[in-house]
Amino acid sequence: MDAIALRRGEHTPIRIQTPKPTPKSGEALVRTLRVGVDGTDIEVLAGEHGGFPPGEDHLVLGHEAVGIVANPNDTDLEEGTVVVPTIRRPHPDGRTAPQHLDQLDMAPMDTVVERGIAGAHGFMAEYFTSEEKYLVPIPDDLADVGFLVEPITITEKAVEHAVASRSAFDWRPESALVLGNGPLGLLTTAMFATGERFSDVYCLGRRDRPDLTIDMVESLGATYIDYRETPVSEISAAHRPMDLVYEATGYARHAFDGLDAVAPAGVLALLGVPTDWPFEIDGGRLHREAVLGNKAVVGSVNADRNHFRAAVRTLDRLPAWVIDDLVTGVSPHTDAEPAFVTDDDASIKTAVEFHRV
Amino acid sequence: MDAIALRRGEHTPIRIQTPKPTPKSGEALVRTLRVGVDGTDIEVLAGEHGGFPPGEDHLVLGHEAVGIVANPNDTDLEEGTVVVPTIRRPHPDGRTAPQHLDQLDMAPMDTVVERGIAGAHGFMAEYFTSEEKYLVPIPDDLADVGFLVEPITITEKAVEHAVASRSAFDWRPESALVLGNGPLGLLTTAMFATGERFSDVYCLGRRDRPDLTIDMVESLGATYIDYRETPVSEISAAHRPMDLVYEATGYARHAFDGLDAVAPAGVLALLGVPTDWPFEIDGGRLHREAVLGNKAVVGSVNADRNHFRAAVRTLDRLPAWVIDDLVTGVSPHTDAEPAFVTDDDASIKTAVEFHRV
Repeated sequence: MDAIALRRGEHTPIRIQTPKPTPKSGEALVRTLRVGVDGTDIEVLAGEHGGFPPGEDHLVLGHEAVGIVANPNDTDLEEGTVVVPTIRRPHPDGRTAPQHLDQLDMAPMDTVVERGIAGAHGFMAEYFTSEEKYLVPIPDDLADVGFLVEPITITEKAVEHAVASRSAFDWRPESALVLGNGPLGLLTTAMFATGERFSDVYCLGRRDRPDLTIDMVESLGATYIDYRETPVSEISAAHRPMDLVYEATGYARHAFDGLDAVAPAGVLALLGVPTDWPFEIDGGRLHREAVLGNKAVVGSVNADRNHFRAAVRTLDRLPAWVIDDLVTGVSPHTDAEPAFVTDDDASIKTAVEFHRV
Repeated sequence: MDAIALRRGEHTPIRIQTPKPTPKSGEALVRTLRVGVDGTDIEVLAGEHGGFPPGEDHLVLGHEAVGIVANPNDTDLEEGTVVVPTIRRPHPDGRTAPQHLDQLDMAPMDTVVERGIAGAHGFMAEYFTSEEKYLVPIPDDLADVGFLVEPITITEKAVEHAVASRSAFDWRPESALVLGNGPLGLLTTAMFATGERFSDVYCLGRRDRPDLTIDMVESLGATYIDYRETPVSEISAAHRPMDLVYEATGYARHAFDGLDAVAPAGVLALLGVPTDWPFEIDGGRLHREAVLGNKAVVGSVNADRNHFRAAVRTLDRLPAWVIDDLVTGVSPHTDAEPAFVTDDDASIKTAVEFHRV
């Protein structure tokens, strides 16, 4: 069967032939529908993040998948059920996380592998297998956009942790600032702007008008902030202090300047995965402001099965026009290259299609 | 009556004469027993933190007080009840915090004053007045050590927020590292080492043996780590990754290096209030580790009435020898100077006594 993979030593995805997998006991065989592409895939291609399965010369890409159960095998799933796979699996060499971290999304990195990212093949193939407990059923009518479930889980988890960090007092947030107008930033801006929690939503980018993403931010009733005009550290004064700042850029300075944008008793959620980068900060001032402002920071990666279930509900309530505007391209797996193009201003969220929905 | 105050332009505490206060409606008059001295007082004396009441040429010092109700006035308190005052009051110019922050300890700094620290006179006087709602009754038998309630509240709140930040999953912490062996660091080490939450406690300092504080750490069954031998960023490898890192130094580098000592899914609590200090960090690496490690950071200042009640219970359960070892000096208010000496290796926690218990 066809798969889209990265070969060791290369930096572009290629189409390869690989045997159609046979499900083991406890696993189902899934016919892949669509697999989304995101910043993590680009980092994996660049060799900045993740890694190959041990002993293999390639990594099958893709972690934002939706498919249909083709063969339930000995699981309780039914043929034809639409499913989204979770990404993390226990490390195959049997390394175990501390007992209290058996929720895989909270486990130390060296005790897990991540399908399509680090140490295990992903879902960009005509078929994949997975243990039943790592497959989340979703409604049939979300099959075509089911590849958005996984990126939504990232925000579901980050927000859950951010809210938890403020649960020792009566926190009533109003404002949220999303740093980044990439696919995750826009999806999150849409979640916040159309959800119940925040009444005042901002999204930061650095694009010139006219621009698809700025149009989308403004259509959502959110405020676009141009980073070149208003640096992150000045947003609090120029607009308002933000109860939640959500960083989806991977730009490490934002992880520190972002604290200046956080209101007293607010929280900064970090999502990006930057490479090493030394720079100067006013560490004394940031430390002091974090303390005197009762501010919190939560780093968040991956998501648990509960977040997948919440993400399905979120996807179901997002307005159709948001999805239509967000998903700018679905490429057939026989010509997947356009889905990996990142410097196209007409492109927001892309996916690769393996079987028609 | 006598009071201990700081005059504008000076940096040492002096004894002044000031009128005995008269309680207003809703206020009680409290006969001061003892008032503790801590790092914040030293910062206030240095002019690094806090400020004078508007229009006044001096600030009555002291925020860690215990006293006895001398005149309940029209409150429901009873004469002779031992009380500990909270520190924050609404800003007298009527600035209001956002509605959701009417818990004073979570309010923005510019909407409150802090007695003995910023904008309002403290408790280092023979008598003070306070509204009833800012006075927390404590058992009579804690009267002599009641000045320890307020510093304990600082840790009660910080730990409550740290635990809250990990409440979105099944967090089962084992290890805690306290950065700093000053009075707050030692008190916190004692709370952790004698409490239920942590089974493995560490305390970091930079003192040579033999030393009172190292002896105390080890008597508590905790492990002393010398910062000069094992920098904070190496503690994780040299000892173990820590589920909770509690920073009580005000040394801003620890606020960033401390993240390296935090275990995956752990939390760093920041308590110190440093002055500005620019320095270089590997911001990319710290950002990445925070995300991939699902780490949290909580800044925490001041405490609410609930934390005072929790602190009373904590103080009551601390072993007597801990208190005896910790409180190295109580000076009469007529000769308070020794209580403010910070460079004496024989001194840990000190207080000024205004009336005999």
